[in-house]
Amino acid sequence: MLKSQTVGILGGMGPAAGADFVRLFVEACARLMRERGELVRDQAFPEHWLAQVPVPDRSGALESSALGAHQPLEPMLQALGRLAALGSRAVAIACNTAHAWHATLQERFPQIEVLHVAREVSAQVAAEGVRDTALMATEGTYRVGLYERAMADAGLACHLPLAEERKLLMRGIYEGVKAGDLRLAEDCFSRVALQLAHRHGPVAIVMGCTEIPLGLQNSAAVAGLRLVDPARVLASALAVRAYDGASQRRHA
Amino acid sequence: MLKSQTVGILGGMGPAAGADFVRLFVEACARLMRERGELVRDQAFPEHWLAQVPVPDRSGALESSALGAHQPLEPMLQALGRLAALGSRAVAIACNTAHAWHATLQERFPQIEVLHVAREVSAQVAAEGVRDTALMATEGTYRVGLYERAMADAGLACHLPLAEERKLLMRGIYEGVKAGDLRLAEDCFSRVALQLAHRHGPVAIVMGCTEIPLGLQNSAAVAGLRLVDPARVLASALAVRAYDGASQRRHA
Repeated sequence: MLKSQTVGILGGMGPAAGADFVRLFVEACARLMRERGELVRDQAFPEHWLAQVPVPDRSGALESSALGAHQPLEPMLQALGRLAALGSRAVAIACNTAHAWHATLQERFPQIEVLHVAREVSAQVAAEGVRDTALMATEGTYRVGLYERAMADAGLACHLPLAEERKLLMRGIYEGVKAGDLRLAEDCFSRVALQLAHRHGPVAIVMGCTEIPLGLQNSAAVAGLRLVDPARVLASALAVRAYDGASQRRHA
Repeated sequence: MLKSQTVGILGGMGPAAGADFVRLFVEACARLMRERGELVRDQAFPEHWLAQVPVPDRSGALESSALGAHQPLEPMLQALGRLAALGSRAVAIACNTAHAWHATLQERFPQIEVLHVAREVSAQVAAEGVRDTALMATEGTYRVGLYERAMADAGLACHLPLAEERKLLMRGIYEGVKAGDLRLAEDCFSRVALQLAHRHGPVAIVMGCTEIPLGLQNSAAVAGLRLVDPARVLASALAVRAYDGASQRRHA
């Protein structure tokens, strides 16, 4: 049986996305086991913990004063500390905007690896030979240039939506997915995705907020577009850390 | 905003069912908020933790010697202790068969409420006016009479599948869902469900293993049958504990 180490998932931002991230992680583990010729059974999965804690709104904090920007950090630090105490060697954050605090979170817990969603996505997209991307995200994620920087580091172009399209995205996220109105969410997200594809051609469209795939998952309107789900990429990366991290430690 | 208290989910049995349980819990919380006229937003969800730990096979342990039957208990006790230490006031176990150890788990952690899936399901089904049920479950769950006892206490009849039908269920659970072959799972589960309905008429068919709904969720073959998903009932019960437990403590 493959050795594995404990990993953690920092969720609650929002809770539906956190739950979906666990599903993606479990699927990624099963896929990895199959690729390596291992029998998929309950006991072969890595121990993993999901923390779904209330965290003040990330985009809101990034728009407010420097003081406000500290608000989401404290509950995230506390939950991360608890995931570390539970034995997690690597942790994924199931929220793109929350990565604005990634550097601080990683710095405070040097004994664990805090995965970085935009770096994982950039590496994955670049490895697939894509050169042009477009980013659907929250205002907070645009404000801190989370994906733009990671994409640039990987040699990728990153096209951004127009101001009114960004407003549509925020509406789909907050009044749509977070409030449970999936029809509104699909309408907002699919309009922006189609406009991005119309303007920039066959780009890889990154759904850079965990709520966006939840609103687009059954959408026929965006069939044919190349949509990248960062949660899926991050979940796979966490599965690799859970299995390969253990063997690296054994061989160290 | 509704007050809430921290709750826990003991999963890993199997991990896909544990992930799905969190989804059901989040949905139940959102539904409860809406029913009570509360705004559904990230910060209004109760803090909750999911432990997905490797636990030896429950049915296997129940079939083996008295010594073997202790195997699943230790990791469950350890995970439950950690969920308690994280502040959980109520914990749901995302595995029906694991409830064979419910009494011991509850006894060791009297400070938290360990929900009992079969009692929650019996109460729910009885409240809906149903009198006849049929049970699809693992051999371990039949062996300990988990549902039969709870159903009898609630004044309900509980019909059981024949020996060859039970074998089909175990095949669908282990070679189907747990091994990732959902087509096989659906075939096994739907055949048994249809036979139970044919023999016993319009009974409520309890999908008394968390893997069964995962295999039947997109099945057209069982459309029209009255299927009860204990995970959904248990997730709703946990949501009620998360909100109402907090207000009871406040008023105490």
